[in-house]
Amino acid sequence: MTGSLVVAGLGPGAQELITPEVNAALAHATDLVGYAPYVARVAERPGLRRHGSDNRVELDRAAFALRLAAEGHHVVIVSSGDPGVFAMAAALFEAIEAGEPSWRDLDIRVLPGISAMFAAAARIGAPLGHDFCAINLSDNLKPWETVERRLRAAAEADFVIALYNPISKARQWQLDKAFALLRGIHPASVPVVFATAVSDPRERIDVVALGEAVGSRADMRTLVMIGSSQTRTIARASGGAYVYTPRFSGAAS
Amino acid sequence: MTGSLVVAGLGPGAQELITPEVNAALAHATDLVGYAPYVARVAERPGLRRHGSDNRVELDRAAFALRLAAEGHHVVIVSSGDPGVFAMAAALFEAIEAGEPSWRDLDIRVLPGISAMFAAAARIGAPLGHDFCAINLSDNLKPWETVERRLRAAAEADFVIALYNPISKARQWQLDKAFALLRGIHPASVPVVFATAVSDPRERIDVVALGEAVGSRADMRTLVMIGSSQTRTIARASGGAYVYTPRFSGAAS
Repeated sequence: MTGSLVVAGLGPGAQELITPEVNAALAHATDLVGYAPYVARVAERPGLRRHGSDNRVELDRAAFALRLAAEGHHVVIVSSGDPGVFAMAAALFEAIEAGEPSWRDLDIRVLPGISAMFAAAARIGAPLGHDFCAINLSDNLKPWETVERRLRAAAEADFVIALYNPISKARQWQLDKAFALLRGIHPASVPVVFATAVSDPRERIDVVALGEAVGSRADMRTLVMIGSSQTRTIARASGGAYVYTPRFSGAAS
Repeated sequence: MTGSLVVAGLGPGAQELITPEVNAALAHATDLVGYAPYVARVAERPGLRRHGSDNRVELDRAAFALRLAAEGHHVVIVSSGDPGVFAMAAALFEAIEAGEPSWRDLDIRVLPGISAMFAAAARIGAPLGHDFCAINLSDNLKPWETVERRLRAAAEADFVIALYNPISKARQWQLDKAFALLRGIHPASVPVVFATAVSDPRERIDVVALGEAVGSRADMRTLVMIGSSQTRTIARASGGAYVYTPRFSGAAS
């Protein structure tokens, strides 16, 4: 019996943002592996074993999934958003490179999903409409100096910046430190978008100026986007505003 | 009669990568607006008017769609990939800001799609598994000096780089110039992924070392990804290789 291993992106939360390709893989699965809250997003059915695990055990989880697939099971590792963006796909290939040589020739597929940053951007306009970067603000797997160096390079080159994992119970000061660093480069008026639990009933989107941005506005489900010097807001008579970054850019930016 | 305007991402090509949310919007539309090859990807049906237009007329196309929505029609502007990434969403908000004040309070929604870079990344492993940036290599709307400055900043800060619009009939030298610039910063062994027509029958994915990368490998449907100094390849016994960027990063990177 030949097993298979799929790493699937469930998107930001809503069912209507899951691709048919991912739904087909879920329907074919014998085993679901992932961080427990993501596994819980997939409906139970007979013949589907669910292996929810704790956060921050990505390599163990990947090796477990690889062993199941090698035994002949049809395994789906579920990720939130897109699995290739600060999620399970990189952990899987780390496990493959470090693990059994035979794992390299298993039937493995990565299925893309709607990433948190594009779902968040869509809700507020088009903040990522020009050159942008995505930075994982967590310093669990890289030194904080590397994060700061990248923030500085990105702002000086005038990229829009999407920050993943801006805050957690164990990491409280990093986001405010990032805002302080960016205030030294950008005008205080640059828009900052806090997008929390996008497409979920708890969804909340706030826009503030960089000069007033404070880290406590974010929680573990928040994606933060900091505009470039060119990012603009459009006020609406009905209240609220759109945020977008024009496609063009002058010589100075 | 109250009209509506949706900007919808059709993903990279395959039907199975279109979200249910986008399919529902297409089913509700009275008018489809977009670059003709994208409009052609949506099946004809009675009651659906199709307004395909030429490339590079994004602002006119957006204003046309806004006028139709203001007249009470249900308009969907179709984009390839994700509409917020070098596509129609930014053009729409440029047109809104420059246009009729009443356009700001139309019923407008942006619906995310699977972007070319995440679809391409998924096909080859997890090249975007660490901090990355997306740069539109076209110098139609920004000076080439800005492109070079961003490429240099991104490589020096060790971002993985996704290049959109790497080449066109009118822009032939930019991609080779970008490779030459990056060879001055990165080791020649850094993997470069050329992903063409992802999820389409014509799909082709090539991986070469930066030292051997040549622009003529790309065409208008190619997404180019250049690894960071940490990006790795895993050879498979069956031929081919995975490309991924580990989640961790040492102090030097």
